Amino acid sequence: MTLATQFSGRIVMVGCGSIGQAVLPLLLRHVVPSPDRITIVTADERGRAAAERFGVEYRVQPLTRENHRAVMEPLLRPGDFLLNLSVDVESVSMVRLARELQVLYLDTVIEPWAGGYTDLSKSASERSNYGMREVALQLGRELGAGPTAVIAQGANPGLVSQLVKEALLRMAEETGLACAQPVDRAGWAVLMRDLGIKAVHIAERDTQVAAGHPKKPGEFVNTWSIDGFVGEGCQPAELGFGTHEKQLPAEGRRHGYGCDAAIYLERPGASTRVRSWTPLAGPYHGFLITHNEAISIADYYTCRDGDTVTWRPTVHYAYHPCDDAVLSVHEFAGRNWQMQPAQRLLMDEISDGIDELGVLLMGNPKGVFWYGSRLSTHEARELAPFNSATSLQVAAGVLGGVVAAIESPAMGMVEADQLDHRRVMEVARPYLGPVVGAWSDWTPLQDRGVLFPEDLDPSDPWQFKNILVR
Amino acid sequence: MTLATQFSGRIVMVGCGSIGQAVLPLLLRHVVPSPDRITIVTADERGRAAAERFGVEYRVQPLTRENHRAVMEPLLRPGDFLLNLSVDVESVSMVRLARELQVLYLDTVIEPWAGGYTDLSKSASERSNYGMREVALQLGRELGAGPTAVIAQGANPGLVSQLVKEALLRMAEETGLACAQPVDRAGWAVLMRDLGIKAVHIAERDTQVAAGHPKKPGEFVNTWSIDGFVGEGCQPAELGFGTHEKQLPAEGRRHGYGCDAAIYLERPGASTRVRSWTPLAGPYHGFLITHNEAISIADYYTCRDGDTVTWRPTVHYAYHPCDDAVLSVHEFAGRNWQMQPAQRLLMDEISDGIDELGVLLMGNPKGVFWYGSRLSTHEARELAPFNSATSLQVAAGVLGGVVAAIESPAMGMVEADQLDHRRVMEVARPYLGPVVGAWSDWTPLQDRGVLFPEDLDPSDPWQFKNILVR
Repeated sequence: MTLATQFSGRIVMVGCGSIGQAVLPLLLRHVVPSPDRITIVTADERGRAAAERFGVEYRVQPLTRENHRAVMEPLLRPGDFLLNLSVDVESVSMVRLARELQVLYLDTVIEPWAGGYTDLSKSASERSNYGMREVALQLGRELGAGPTAVIAQGANPGLVSQLVKEALLRMAEETGLACAQPVDRAGWAVLMRDLGIKAVHIAERDTQVAAGHPKKPGEFVNTWSIDGFVGEGCQPAELGFGTHEKQLPAEGRRHGYGCDAAIYLERPGASTRVRSWTPLAGPYHGFLITHNEAISIADYYTCRDGDTVTWRPTVHYAYHPCDDAVLSVHEFAGRNWQMQPAQRLLMDEISDGIDELGVLLMGNPKGVFWYGSRLSTHEARELAPFNSATSLQVAAGVLGGVVAAIESPAMGMVEADQLDHRRVMEVARPYLGPVVGAWSDWTPLQDRGVLFPEDLDPSDPWQFKNILVR
Repeated sequence: MTLATQFSGRIVMVGCGSIGQAVLPLLLRHVVPSPDRITIVTADERGRAAAERFGVEYRVQPLTRENHRAVMEPLLRPGDFLLNLSVDVESVSMVRLARELQVLYLDTVIEPWAGGYTDLSKSASERSNYGMREVALQLGRELGAGPTAVIAQGANPGLVSQLVKEALLRMAEETGLACAQPVDRAGWAVLMRDLGIKAVHIAERDTQVAAGHPKKPGEFVNTWSIDGFVGEGCQPAELGFGTHEKQLPAEGRRHGYGCDAAIYLERPGASTRVRSWTPLAGPYHGFLITHNEAISIADYYTCRDGDTVTWRPTVHYAYHPCDDAVLSVHEFAGRNWQMQPAQRLLMDEISDGIDELGVLLMGNPKGVFWYGSRLSTHEARELAPFNSATSLQVAAGVLGGVVAAIESPAMGMVEADQLDHRRVMEVARPYLGPVVGAWSDWTPLQDRGVLFPEDLDPSDPWQFKNILVR
């Protein structure tokens, strides 16, 4: 892979946890010619070994609302790249700074300052991803044209938006739907609508396991940032809310401002289970963890007649993290969301497993269609050092987004859905393992209501009430 | 430990899974002088190695509704002991047979014939433990006086009924409640009432783990009978329902017949989580798996004025099985209760952990009081071969019950609560590890409603609505 546009700037990477360490070798392989063109600014020592191995400058300096300008300004010149892979550093502040300094920007989420996900001075809507996205979109409108700032481009959010587009094209081809590749947002929305889609899950089953290192009581174990997972798991569960939905769920709330593409539930995602399906797992229960893509995809694929919304899919995450993380969430819930005293990020201990990460599109008469990456931890390690399957999927999405930003450096603020999915996928694909599509006759009504009566809507399998686990 | 009454009969043990194998060395150590006094009749080869090690006759002959009389009659003479440690062999049929043959009997549950827990020709009430207990109690009334038949005497149900009595006496002593040891059921109920108890949990946290042998996808792993756990996990969730409860839970149903001490929920226990507390785990979420003791304890501790119920506690199980079983249940639920293709009973692979099994009594002004066994798998193995912590706790309860039956051989049908708790505990205690009591200020309202509003009853922490996880 070569860049269409030579990148002559420097990269300042904020954060060097599991994702920062995973991205570093890819940046050196594909984006910058030498390690002295990268500087890492991060809150702790976690990434020092990786940085030193590659000869990259490593500064420990936690960024805060108060110091972030003073720390970052001396490091960035126009045309450089500010790559925010941190937690607890507010995305919109960094986007604003990037614009002022005329540098490119990419973030894998839309992040608040430390404590923002559980800041009780804010309403549930304000600490939702919907609320944070609306603030970011408003900033994007304010900033207008200028250097590209990509928000929420990792694996998910990020790569899954590109997977949705590839999946739609595959579905159209395999069902004989005559269509040209859409050229704009409206065209993509019409394609999804015409394929009969009612709901889209980001359907992920992480089977990575560390044999010989079982989770201990009082320990939170995960294959990626524990702070990141816990933060989003304590946010309200959120979903893009389709026009086919007949009723709000019991704890469902509309935000009452902004794009109105999504709702939230008045409960944490880490306690909210949904039914989904992947080819290797089969039917499973995942957590409805809020994610930016649930909102951005629902918003992107909205059909309108003037200002009137005529069609929109339901979109949300159905996350089955690695087994140790399922246990960690169970214990964390039992502690009423008081963090366990110990945390452990799985990386070198992982002995086996796959992160099966894709999108499940539901509603087409031919069946449901899952499309995604089936990356094993063994293959991930062969592809790049300092990686598990999970981190490399995120790193691949970051790399694709970084390349897309460098090659189209004047897009202003964009979301993952607005990037050229072909180019992002071209860059990311070598790091994703097998990217496969699979049809199934699965529906959330299968084997339901057998032992006990359940409140189901048999007339439409794709109602959220059939998906939600009670 | 010596028997007060010499046991001169034979023991026919039906079933030789994890519990049968665990009980066998204890019977040979304490009850019968030589292995030729025991015969095992069981459905498969699982227990053969244990039987052969001890020189005990081992017959593979699955018992059914059709053949159980023909198989068992030749094996039993008056005064012998029929010890039913099987699954899928109906307890009431075996009790009836035991009475006809004038033999002693003990069972660790009240079991239906194969498929009975999920027999869709029966109502949820009929396939509940309440329904099965009512059938057994009716049989007990029909049979009247005669050889002792102990139903539901393992660890739980069983030993926990004896732990409740020890706990009540400890609480009375430590709170300065002046009382003599109760001499009858009414006295025990008054003692519990006078201690201010509103709810009793069988609060269990199994931390046993098999490092190096993590659960695989598609595998159900547990520290005791997988068939047994899955059977009860698919039954309706059930709880003894206290007189302090202000409302039925949403899916709560009354049976409309029998003792009326308990209700059921129209959902499987394996999908129903409750909040509880143990000294080592702290606050945790357990499964509200139906168990006979939830009903029998609530019934036993009912205060009456004539026919009018004046007081009764809420009683139920709050089971945190070993971590691999939590994962197994999560996967099993995701498969809509279609059994995983593989099962694995943990025994020799267990590398560490404790089964913290006790009773949590709630409502006394001094706080909640947990009282129970804290047996580690290492200590269990030192105490008896073919055991984990879990199996030895059950085996200890069985041994205590067997001894109590032999020493009081003419009690007719009795439940665990009707046995002499002092004698059962005396026999069982050497196999339970540390038996400890602990007070705590825990309530299910702690740390609740912080991130999101919750429908709580702050005026009474011990309302079931505060305990149930939604």
